Amino acid sequence: MSYLIKGGTVVSTTGPNPADVLVDGERIVALFAPGTGPQEIETIDATGKYVIPGAIDAHTHMQMPFGGTEASDTFDTGTRAAAFGGTTTIIDFAIQRYGEVVQDGLAAWHAKTAGTCHIDYGFHMILGGVDDESLKAMDQLVADEGITSFKLFMAYPGVFYSDDGQILRAMQRARDNGAMIMMHAENGPAIDVLVKQALERGETDPYHHGVTRPQELEAEATSRAIWLASVAADCPLYIVHLSASKALEQVAAARDLGRNVFAETCPQYLYLTLEDQLGAPGFEGAKWVCSTPLRSKHESHRADLWRGLRTNDLAMVSTDHCPFCMKDQKEMGVGDFSKIPNGIGGVEHRVDLLYQGVVDGKLSLGRWVETIATTPARMFGMYPRKGVIAPGSDADIVLYDPAGRTRIGVDTHHMNMDYSAWEGWEIAGRVDTVISRGTVIVRGGEYEGRAGHGRYVPRGLSDYLV
Amino acid sequence: MSYLIKGGTVVSTTGPNPADVLVDGERIVALFAPGTGPQEIETIDATGKYVIPGAIDAHTHMQMPFGGTEASDTFDTGTRAAAFGGTTTIIDFAIQRYGEVVQDGLAAWHAKTAGTCHIDYGFHMILGGVDDESLKAMDQLVADEGITSFKLFMAYPGVFYSDDGQILRAMQRARDNGAMIMMHAENGPAIDVLVKQALERGETDPYHHGVTRPQELEAEATSRAIWLASVAADCPLYIVHLSASKALEQVAAARDLGRNVFAETCPQYLYLTLEDQLGAPGFEGAKWVCSTPLRSKHESHRADLWRGLRTNDLAMVSTDHCPFCMKDQKEMGVGDFSKIPNGIGGVEHRVDLLYQGVVDGKLSLGRWVETIATTPARMFGMYPRKGVIAPGSDADIVLYDPAGRTRIGVDTHHMNMDYSAWEGWEIAGRVDTVISRGTVIVRGGEYEGRAGHGRYVPRGLSDYLV
Amino acid sequence: MSYLIKGGTVVSTTGPNPADVLVDGERIVALFAPGTGPQEIETIDATGKYVIPGAIDAHTHMQMPFGGTEASDTFDTGTRAAAFGGTTTIIDFAIQRYGEVVQDGLAAWHAKTAGTCHIDYGFHMILGGVDDESLKAMDQLVADEGITSFKLFMAYPGVFYSDDGQILRAMQRARDNGAMIMMHAENGPAIDVLVKQALERGETDPYHHGVTRPQELEAEATSRAIWLASVAADCPLYIVHLSASKALEQVAAARDLGRNVFAETCPQYLYLTLEDQLGAPGFEGAKWVCSTPLRSKHESHRADLWRGLRTNDLAMVSTDHCPFCMKDQKEMGVGDFSKIPNGIGGVEHRVDLLYQGVVDGKLSLGRWVETIATTPARMFGMYPRKGVIAPGSDADIVLYDPAGRTRIGVDTHHMNMDYSAWEGWEIAGRVDTVISRGTVIVRGGEYEGRAGHGRYVPRGLSDYLV
Amino acid sequence: MSYLIKGGTVVSTTGPNPADVLVDGERIVALFAPGTGPQEIETIDATGKYVIPGAIDAHTHMQMPFGGTEASDTFDTGTRAAAFGGTTTIIDFAIQRYGEVVQDGLAAWHAKTAGTCHIDYGFHMILGGVDDESLKAMDQLVADEGITSFKLFMAYPGVFYSDDGQILRAMQRARDNGAMIMMHAENGPAIDVLVKQALERGETDPYHHGVTRPQELEAEATSRAIWLASVAADCPLYIVHLSASKALEQVAAARDLGRNVFAETCPQYLYLTLEDQLGAPGFEGAKWVCSTPLRSKHESHRADLWRGLRTNDLAMVSTDHCPFCMKDQKEMGVGDFSKIPNGIGGVEHRVDLLYQGVVDGKLSLGRWVETIATTPARMFGMYPRKGVIAPGSDADIVLYDPAGRTRIGVDTHHMNMDYSAWEGWEIAGRVDTVISRGTVIVRGGEYEGRAGHGRYVPRGLSDYLV
Ligand SMILES: [Zn+2]
Ligand SMILES: [Zn+2]
Ligand SMILES: [Zn+2]
Ligand SMILES: [Zn+2]
Ligand SMILES: [Zn+2]
Ligand SMILES: [Zn+2]
Ligand SMILES: [Zn+2]
Ligand SMILES: [Zn+2]
Repeated sequence: MSYLIKGGTVVSTTGPNPADVLVDGERIVALFAPGTGPQEIETIDATGKYVIPGAIDAHTHMQMPFGGTEASDTFDTGTRAAAFGGTTTIIDFAIQRYGEVVQDGLAAWHAKTAGTCHIDYGFHMILGGVDDESLKAMDQLVADEGITSFKLFMAYPGVFYSDDGQILRAMQRARDNGAMIMMHAENGPAIDVLVKQALERGETDPYHHGVTRPQELEAEATSRAIWLASVAADCPLYIVHLSASKALEQVAAARDLGRNVFAETCPQYLYLTLEDQLGAPGFEGAKWVCSTPLRSKHESHRADLWRGLRTNDLAMVSTDHCPFCMKDQKEMGVGDFSKIPNGIGGVEHRVDLLYQGVVDGKLSLGRWVETIATTPARMFGMYPRKGVIAPGSDADIVLYDPAGRTRIGVDTHHMNMDYSAWEGWEIAGRVDTVISRGTVIVRGGEYEGRAGHGRYVPRGLSDYLV
Repeated sequence: MSYLIKGGTVVSTTGPNPADVLVDGERIVALFAPGTGPQEIETIDATGKYVIPGAIDAHTHMQMPFGGTEASDTFDTGTRAAAFGGTTTIIDFAIQRYGEVVQDGLAAWHAKTAGTCHIDYGFHMILGGVDDESLKAMDQLVADEGITSFKLFMAYPGVFYSDDGQILRAMQRARDNGAMIMMHAENGPAIDVLVKQALERGETDPYHHGVTRPQELEAEATSRAIWLASVAADCPLYIVHLSASKALEQVAAARDLGRNVFAETCPQYLYLTLEDQLGAPGFEGAKWVCSTPLRSKHESHRADLWRGLRTNDLAMVSTDHCPFCMKDQKEMGVGDFSKIPNGIGGVEHRVDLLYQGVVDGKLSLGRWVETIATTPARMFGMYPRKGVIAPGSDADIVLYDPAGRTRIGVDTHHMNMDYSAWEGWEIAGRVDTVISRGTVIVRGGEYEGRAGHGRYVPRGLSDYLV
Repeated sequence: MSYLIKGGTVVSTTGPNPADVLVDGERIVALFAPGTGPQEIETIDATGKYVIPGAIDAHTHMQMPFGGTEASDTFDTGTRAAAFGGTTTIIDFAIQRYGEVVQDGLAAWHAKTAGTCHIDYGFHMILGGVDDESLKAMDQLVADEGITSFKLFMAYPGVFYSDDGQILRAMQRARDNGAMIMMHAENGPAIDVLVKQALERGETDPYHHGVTRPQELEAEATSRAIWLASVAADCPLYIVHLSASKALEQVAAARDLGRNVFAETCPQYLYLTLEDQLGAPGFEGAKWVCSTPLRSKHESHRADLWRGLRTNDLAMVSTDHCPFCMKDQKEMGVGDFSKIPNGIGGVEHRVDLLYQGVVDGKLSLGRWVETIATTPARMFGMYPRKGVIAPGSDADIVLYDPAGRTRIGVDTHHMNMDYSAWEGWEIAGRVDTVISRGTVIVRGGEYEGRAGHGRYVPRGLSDYLV
Repeated sequence: MSYLIKGGTVVSTTGPNPADVLVDGERIVALFAPGTGPQEIETIDATGKYVIPGAIDAHTHMQMPFGGTEASDTFDTGTRAAAFGGTTTIIDFAIQRYGEVVQDGLAAWHAKTAGTCHIDYGFHMILGGVDDESLKAMDQLVADEGITSFKLFMAYPGVFYSDDGQILRAMQRARDNGAMIMMHAENGPAIDVLVKQALERGETDPYHHGVTRPQELEAEATSRAIWLASVAADCPLYIVHLSASKALEQVAAARDLGRNVFAETCPQYLYLTLEDQLGAPGFEGAKWVCSTPLRSKHESHRADLWRGLRTNDLAMVSTDHCPFCMKDQKEMGVGDFSKIPNGIGGVEHRVDLLYQGVVDGKLSLGRWVETIATTPARMFGMYPRKGVIAPGSDADIVLYDPAGRTRIGVDTHHMNMDYSAWEGWEIAGRVDTVISRGTVIVRGGEYEGRAGHGRYVPRGLSDYLV
């Protein structure tokens, strides 16, 4: 089946350009100057709309096990919510825990996603125990499984933590097999001291989750990861959920040297703060407990992160979607912030929240598309199949209405959460139509997709290296 | 007339993608997944070739008057040579001298180009005398004449030199009318002291042209221009012909702050050196006398410039094509390097010389296209008409043969110069076919174009600002 | 005549140490562990006092001609006021104006000081016109006249301004003859544009003196001077009256590279601000019109300058004492801030104002002495004759009472000014006794000195270079 | 007993000054202008000599247990050798091992030193196991034992290693009790990976000790220590044996911010290199196995370290004296560099080796004295008792002969080592006479001291903080 998306303005990384887009089956097959395409064909009217590549969220945690509970979105509910928000591909994290076989972890995640996803998906692999076996597994996943990125943690001693020797070994192996090392960059051993001291002082509310994770300990870990990557012959390094000015400085300094060091930030760090959200009265702040934490509004974090997005010191924006309900889940931490499950849900809102940046003059249209779609595809080995409106690419397409408005709240969102981190926010722009591999799954805001439509996307090596 | 460029690999800024390109008249009208385009149509076979946007050289000086002589390429010979090298648009410099009316200078350059150019062209305007009248003229040129960039000189006191007060005023005006300030950043008054002292010491050979223009005086002027632009409320600033590591540091520092500061470098700075070329025996070095000068091979300039191209601290590459023959022209400076006309011809070789960087692993394919075509178009207000293979864009297209080789020399080049700055260099890649606004002007290396085909391109404001 | 200063605590640059000081004639002849000195001798009781080297103010302008008027303190009134404040040596500026003979300027200043000074004095030479003649004069002054520092101006075009070529030539000469180049680092040509524009907009009050001299134009000039000094083979460079954070950054960066770049700041920049003083209602702000100007309290200038004093990025503190009365003098600029004579009087208060920094925990005792006495002596070639309590040194000694308090105001100060820039300030510490070359000139706050006691101090080369 | 050191030039941190020094008993009691002191008194002729404060070596390891052996100098042989070299005080390291009681470690070291030392000595305390008990012990040692500096290790996992949580806790405690944290800054876990890999590849010779400890892992650890100290409310931090350019950059950056971050380097890093010494043929390189290791001569380490000494980014020079003989000791590592005891002996040569820097124009005389004597005293709470020639100070004095020469070698040195790390070096300057608390222990190069003369010096808090 063929159809023509007509009358819209295609936005690429270098800017907007009016063009009609011909879809045939699952792929884009042609782009036409307006009105020059085939006449006798079904059309989708894109007049007044931006036609952008389906957005890619490269950092989600659907139904992730965490401290006796599990992230509240399944791959079913989570990918459906993502689709509503204009995201047509996610990359989730399969997990190897210490002592487990890497391939078993991957198999478990394949089992969870089989038949449940509404949109396409790939996996990064979390390595919870770097040793000879897991290093061999890295090679195999890169060669055979389409897994080309591996996440390590400098925090959470006893859970996912790798020491610097393990990190160095994994980086050396990545250097050899071409994979990307993703890093949760916070100094866990030092944070744990601060957390223990705070709790001993009776500082138990959610706000202290933030103050016990000072930006210096994110900056330090970011810096350390960069040093270790240089010792590993400049292994490519990707810092996840960068939240703080001083951490950004470390990344920017490495990039000035031409290093293959990249970072993402998340919408929550661009908008929300330690004081206004995490410091909300009572236990309310638990809604925004995530790590890295929200930062102080009295410092320049948010302005610096927006600037970093403009300068490409921050390559892209992911959500780190990891939702937990207040009831029964976040509530586990009443009286002890360290027991609050860490995570914010937002997979549905990234495209809109970043478009607000366009409206506010903080990003160009081209940079919007780049940070939510094109760079994620290039960074993680899915380009040009994903991330671009081009002949031959998957027909993952969003029609975005710049004249629309989006109001966010628990009553209207589609994520499986009993609150919204953005309750009451009304912002410019609206996702109008979402196409996944040629199939319209959202039309005029109404859902037409289905669980099982989404397919696994084996990924190649990053082609984003400098 | 229509035809299909078939079988090639279209390269955009984000990377290569196989696609067929449909040209109708002067424009690109469609891109197709390979083999999906119209069947009954004339075709150009691009099998094995890169299909890239026609390159844009944003810094040339055809038949520029200089010290009693004139650059040896006319707009006719120079644009024909450019076409041979895959360049389909140049931006040359119209000149206002001190005491002249700006619009008269522009008219003079329009007169020179009328009917003589083989490819499209635009103009920057050199302001040789900033005062109330010329500031008013800036506004008029931006509004009515398609001139949106204005060059000032911190060197050449008594010729083009503007003092810091004049620079500040021009920057303030540019801030208001949206234009870009281009800067020749060398500290002229200090250089003139060093030149005079060298000549007094009997140091008269071409090599001393280089040592009397130390990189510190380029870095200083670059830094000063950046400070002045910040006082002018962050007026957009573009540093021309950046040659030196320390100057690059200034640009990089400003860009880290998110400033609208940009820079170009030129092929000569990426490959040639103070010692090997400018320091050639006898008067030979005169061939490479240009300002800013070639830099020492014992410092890290070339590696730093290549890195700057990768990190986008250098946005693009121009040639600063300003050819003079050895005979009668360069020879004016025998016995006094300060009398050697400043300039190197290279408009024909930029695309090839930068492709060599791709082969050497210094640039990605996408970045090659970006630095020679897409960014110049965006930087100087010609995008998406120029600089991109997209439906609706001018059909300025180059078929580039990665399997070919190019040998450079005076016997084979098409520039009106009696020597080549790159004599004997043989490099990878070859321009196969060049299309200008739909017309094939070079086919399989043979020329089919004509003087007068080229048209003036009025330009809009830069859409490259961060 | 001999006497013993007994019971006090001698403060050197490395800290306090109890010791008794024996003075014989004009010199210090011995230091003793407490109580171990000669018994049968006149004593001055220093119990509870700090015994510090007489302070040196290396930047004053007594009776300096300026725009038809003259700084209101003569060498008589000004050096007497200095003595009251614990300063026993000044270095004033002799002036060569454009077109004048350097030696004539020096002779004029020797004439003014002959028989009039209460304390010892030296001269820096202002070069208002760098040319072959004045460069030769530099050599002669260094060799024969004890003048080893030469001040140039990057501001005041048409008055003292040197262009970058002149600056470079003077720096080269200084490099050869060993002298120090002192620099008034503000970009005058750019400032003059801003001043003209402000006046045209009717912004005529003193506050606009400040905003038309933005810190960027001080930082730029500071940076440029540092670049030029590097071209002059690392000629020693001393930035006068540094006032702004961004200028300090330039100095700090050069010093990190081990460059011989130094800077002073002044008490007014450590305490007073654009808003609170220069922005006082009506014409009141004229009291604080000086260049460089007071900086905004909403930026971090004051904290940064104090930190710079601690880190030695700021080597020392001078006053730039250049007093003008409100009546008839400052009033020349009613309705046009650019006509207000530039200058603040403060020669009397530096020692106390910096001691307040000790009380506030911003400086150590040793650093206090270093910044007001020892470094000025070393920087400007008077050490160990001046600036230290050591056997053989001139007996320039201050007994400072840390338990005392000083209240500043026009009723009590001794400078010839009809207002005080520090009216009503009450600060910790008090100058108790001042000894100049063995003679007590202030005792218990009462004056015992006389005009003509002060002698010219020919200076050697700086021994402060790194 | 009294005597007068007559005719010499006293050198203080601010420069040389001729003066005579009166010693009475153990103390200096007076300084006199030349010739003005007492006449009827025993004299030591210092004509032509520099009279400097006895040098202080703040980093030695006499008879330190290490991997089944012990550093080859006892407190007896080592302090005697130190005295020959002009050092009159050492600060050695008492050791708490993991699981031991801190105070027991201190007692053990007091037992070793009782009656054995030729010169005065103090102790730092190595904390090999930070926990609640040892943190309490810190307070007690500061309050009662004159131990105010505590060393932690980021290297040597399983031996002295502290993790980042332990480091943070110790820093917090130091912040509260005023102590200085000293840091061995190398990333041990990462180094251990590199060492294991090298040995597996058969790279077993001493040279690979160096290449498995790349400067990046010193710089990283230095940076991390600085970050952790900032989290500990700017706890004072002292980096030991800094050897590398990139590590120095970290310290310099912190110091530019006004942080209380200090560093020492050692003579071996100023002169010796990875290639020329550690890379000597066969097992010869074992002589120079120490950690941090010698650095590459192809990089700028040595020049940068000398510059750091000039700029005070390196505060002082210690030896890290930790001698092992080749026979039986270094030989333990034949065939496995990781088994070579780490350490170089040099306590005897520091004063001379640094004086060579004066001769080479790399340090001023005043800075020489500052880096070997005055700053060590101030940094570690012994000033003004030690480190300065001033009335009331201990009569620890060296007469240094600038006209002498020193030839270093195993035949002439006094350390208990069967080789010299400086064999055959002949350098300018010579220690002539050494006085410890008033007693001449070296006279004209001949030894007159005795074991047991040296006394324990309880130390106060650092008074060197900025
Ligand atoms: Zn994470
Ligand atoms: Zn995550
Ligand atoms: Zn130019
Ligand atoms: Zn040019
Ligand atoms: Zn001035
Ligand atoms: Zn002044
Ligand atoms: Zn160590
Ligand atoms: Zn040690």
